[in-house]
Amino acid sequence: MAGGITIALDAMGGDLGCEAVVKGAGIARIRQPDVHYEFHGDEAQLKPLLETDDALAAVSTIHHTDVAVSMDDKPSQALRAGRRVSSMWLAIDAVREGRAQAAVSCGNTGALTVMSRMILKTMPGIERPAIAAIWPTMRGESIVLDVGANVVAEQKNLVNFAIMGEAMARTALGQLKPSVGLLNIGAEEMKGNEEIKGAAQFLREADLNFDFHGFVEGDDISKGTVDVVVTDGFTGNVALKTAEGTARLIADYLSNAMRRSLASRIGYLLARGAFNVLRQRMDPSKVNGGVFLGLNGVVVKSHGSATAEGIAAALDLAIDMARNDIIKKIAADLERVHGARTETAAAEASAIPQTAETGTE
Amino acid sequence: MAGGITIALDAMGGDLGCEAVVKGAGIARIRQPDVHYEFHGDEAQLKPLLETDDALAAVSTIHHTDVAVSMDDKPSQALRAGRRVSSMWLAIDAVREGRAQAAVSCGNTGALTVMSRMILKTMPGIERPAIAAIWPTMRGESIVLDVGANVVAEQKNLVNFAIMGEAMARTALGQLKPSVGLLNIGAEEMKGNEEIKGAAQFLREADLNFDFHGFVEGDDISKGTVDVVVTDGFTGNVALKTAEGTARLIADYLSNAMRRSLASRIGYLLARGAFNVLRQRMDPSKVNGGVFLGLNGVVVKSHGSATAEGIAAALDLAIDMARNDIIKKIAADLERVHGARTETAAAEASAIPQTAETGTE
Repeated sequence: MAGGITIALDAMGGDLGCEAVVKGAGIARIRQPDVHYEFHGDEAQLKPLLETDDALAAVSTIHHTDVAVSMDDKPSQALRAGRRVSSMWLAIDAVREGRAQAAVSCGNTGALTVMSRMILKTMPGIERPAIAAIWPTMRGESIVLDVGANVVAEQKNLVNFAIMGEAMARTALGQLKPSVGLLNIGAEEMKGNEEIKGAAQFLREADLNFDFHGFVEGDDISKGTVDVVVTDGFTGNVALKTAEGTARLIADYLSNAMRRSLASRIGYLLARGAFNVLRQRMDPSKVNGGVFLGLNGVVVKSHGSATAEGIAAALDLAIDMARNDIIKKIAADLERVHGARTETAAAEASAIPQTAETGTE
Repeated sequence: MAGGITIALDAMGGDLGCEAVVKGAGIARIRQPDVHYEFHGDEAQLKPLLETDDALAAVSTIHHTDVAVSMDDKPSQALRAGRRVSSMWLAIDAVREGRAQAAVSCGNTGALTVMSRMILKTMPGIERPAIAAIWPTMRGESIVLDVGANVVAEQKNLVNFAIMGEAMARTALGQLKPSVGLLNIGAEEMKGNEEIKGAAQFLREADLNFDFHGFVEGDDISKGTVDVVVTDGFTGNVALKTAEGTARLIADYLSNAMRRSLASRIGYLLARGAFNVLRQRMDPSKVNGGVFLGLNGVVVKSHGSATAEGIAAALDLAIDMARNDIIKKIAADLERVHGARTETAAAEASAIPQTAETGTE
């Protein structure tokens, strides 16, 4: 543990309960054996589960609480005093205390958003945190942000989303010089709104260590035209859910089309392996979830219906970002782009989280 | 022609040229034999094409022009004096003159948007026209608007989009009492922006002859949760293009997955028929395009790369909307919802187009 990475897990937030969380950690442990896991949840449930995996138990601790944030809780309910001993709160608080380097939860997104922001505060120079999603593309994976932390984004928010996104692309996707695009539409001569146009102009003129590509359109996300797609949380959330809905619609079409004739039914049986590959790549419960960027600590949101493999993927991502110290990378890039204005801010950001109280609420 | 429907076709706008347009009209004519077609384009090209289809030639006229709006023209270029004799301009102008009941083009969307608005003007009471798309869903088809006519939408625009969309659902989808939802996100307690919340409140309290469902999210579009999804043109355009990109990504995954093993390759051959069905349902060049709503006349935009079948589908839609007099339906519903305020406006809207100069520019 000394010098190593500790991940705090909210073991009670997901639809599938403690079991999926413990099994997910078991999978992640095989791939990353030097990480410590802090499970926040009901000891009576967690202990017997950990007893089935000695290797995981050896690198784990249980922090008991029987208070859970439910999927139906409104964010305001989640912030009530009684929830401050919930598994979600305690996992995030372990990051604030510096005991863990990242928190992972598959709980209620709204509650996780407001709790993370309240506990960890935004980084100096960041007014609005963002949720980043990893999006499968024809060329591999891209990062899309914001997918729902905020309803609107001003010019400076979009610029900071670009910086946070490229820092994540360097750590999570291993891109040395990520390309970044601003999501826009192509139908009008005077494209986009003032915020987007202003952000584009700022980024074109700034001293960047990433490649600013300019504007991209909705179909460029899946094409993988750029490594990072920047947009406001409203548009990003609609795009993400529209893509999920489209994937389900096509799966539905396909299964109907396959039932049409005897030949296609036999064909389906023969091609079953291929369909399973497709299903895995399309299944949102098996991919890693969103990452909260712009806070004084790493919080990864796994899909609410995440299976053990989904949770393991979210853990991989959290470990990756903690190991690469993404918060320091973001702080350094904010300083580079905004110049002297955030020099002190960047210095503060690399200090330990609990002293960084200057973040805008 | 007397008392019948005439459709004006921009025969030069699409990627596939006159041939696809004439063949598309040939397909539509078989389904709707009592419609007259006005082809606007190069007579030297159109005449020999029409000579190959006597039945179509018998219900068609050619209006010669050799000026075309190119796919690369900016909207401002398209409005220059020289373009006012273009095939696109003349087709729309036939609607203004009352000679045609609808115009169909597979040309440049931006040019078509500004030209349609300049020639036909917006309906009284409508400040911003919208482009409506027909979206395939698990339950059939839904209408999504605006998919790109405007960058922003205020509360009253969203309310009017709802009215225009439900009128279109009654004519194009045959829904007697369409359900309408406002596109929103679910991640925050205070959902959506002020415009969306205001529009929802207005629609909840208004005297409607459609079913206002409330808010829907991105994945509800493909689910077919409502018949009409209302959003601003920025979000709608991003959603549409994101869905197209997702469909292409999945097709790409599928074709790669199918090549993985001998069994899946044999399976693919056996299931070929099913794949062709899927491809047809997913192919944007084969579905009908966007409809411009809120103008004093019907304009249908077919996909730029539309094949003859795609153009035939766009013609079916245009004929349907002209026959059902959608402009009158929209005017009547605007009056119903907004009350006395638009009483005169509705009266004007049912007058002949060229006198309706009161539309807001």
